[in-house]
Amino acid sequence: MDSDIREGEVALDFDPGAKADGSVSFIGWIQTPWKERGSAPRNLIQARERTSEPAHLVLQPAYGPGLSCLEGYSHVVVLYWMDRARRDLILQWPRHSDRARGVFSLRSPVRPNPIALGIVPLLGVDQDMARVTVGPLDCLDGTPLLDIKPYHASTDAYPNAVSS
Amino acid sequence: MDSDIREGEVALDFDPGAKADGSVSFIGWIQTPWKERGSAPRNLIQARERTSEPAHLVLQPAYGPGLSCLEGYSHVVVLYWMDRARRDLILQWPRHSDRARGVFSLRSPVRPNPIALGIVPLLGVDQDMARVTVGPLDCLDGTPLLDIKPYHASTDAYPNAVSS
Repeated sequence: MDSDIREGEVALDFDPGAKADGSVSFIGWIQTPWKERGSAPRNLIQARERTSEPAHLVLQPAYGPGLSCLEGYSHVVVLYWMDRARRDLILQWPRHSDRARGVFSLRSPVRPNPIALGIVPLLGVDQDMARVTVGPLDCLDGTPLLDIKPYHASTDAYPNAVSS
Repeated sequence: MDSDIREGEVALDFDPGAKADGSVSFIGWIQTPWKERGSAPRNLIQARERTSEPAHLVLQPAYGPGLSCLEGYSHVVVLYWMDRARRDLILQWPRHSDRARGVFSLRSPVRPNPIALGIVPLLGVDQDMARVTVGPLDCLDGTPLLDIKPYHASTDAYPNAVSS
């Protein structure tokens, strides 16, 4: 795996993926137009620029009742599992960056716990089919789904948030 | 565990916590003023109303370098592990609600994957001490920390999001 490391990048001397403090259970999968890693968008903005095609959250049937009352929300938080990424790169040198950066200052899928977060418009809920339609997501087709949460502007929206 | 169930609530016929599709590794712990479950706030709004005391994200020392460049952000997304909650309640009847609701329409810690999400102002980063200070959080003191991500207004802020 170390052959993938770029100059300036630093790996931990252990693999966080080998240390199981808790377990996640996939509640379903995400359908997107992105079939191959090389051609997938790198983030949500790129995904929106490249398609208007919605993403589908396909839940295992047992989880269908959990969608009750979700349809009242305009936006949702989607958590998914970036299971193809290594987990040990503590400093990473992103393309277009002038330096290596700490993993916690990046939204990279490469992180100790490969949980990705997408906030998207909610377009439709089919509880009987255990299926949710949302705005474009940036993940590969078939990415495991961990959670759906309602988005609350009161606690989640900081339109004046900045980075320097 | 079923003795905790309220009228109208429905449990899955399996425990998602017993089905390990992937593993999480705790990167640290969260320090808050809330020492006991009964007296902890139920959400971020209650936490802010009840204290102005910041929360501290205390990382394991190996993860300290991962905080590099985080200080440039005004807000962060914090993911934490609600390890004391059951995971099988697919329909839940929250206090102050007139009906049972699907788990995915709630921010309840009781969910198939007990990953909680808090978006908070970033108040300070001490990379050498592997310690981050943020606005008030609603979780119990000692809650396991899973991830810190930079907050981007461009993809994360929907101030006009609504629920009906």
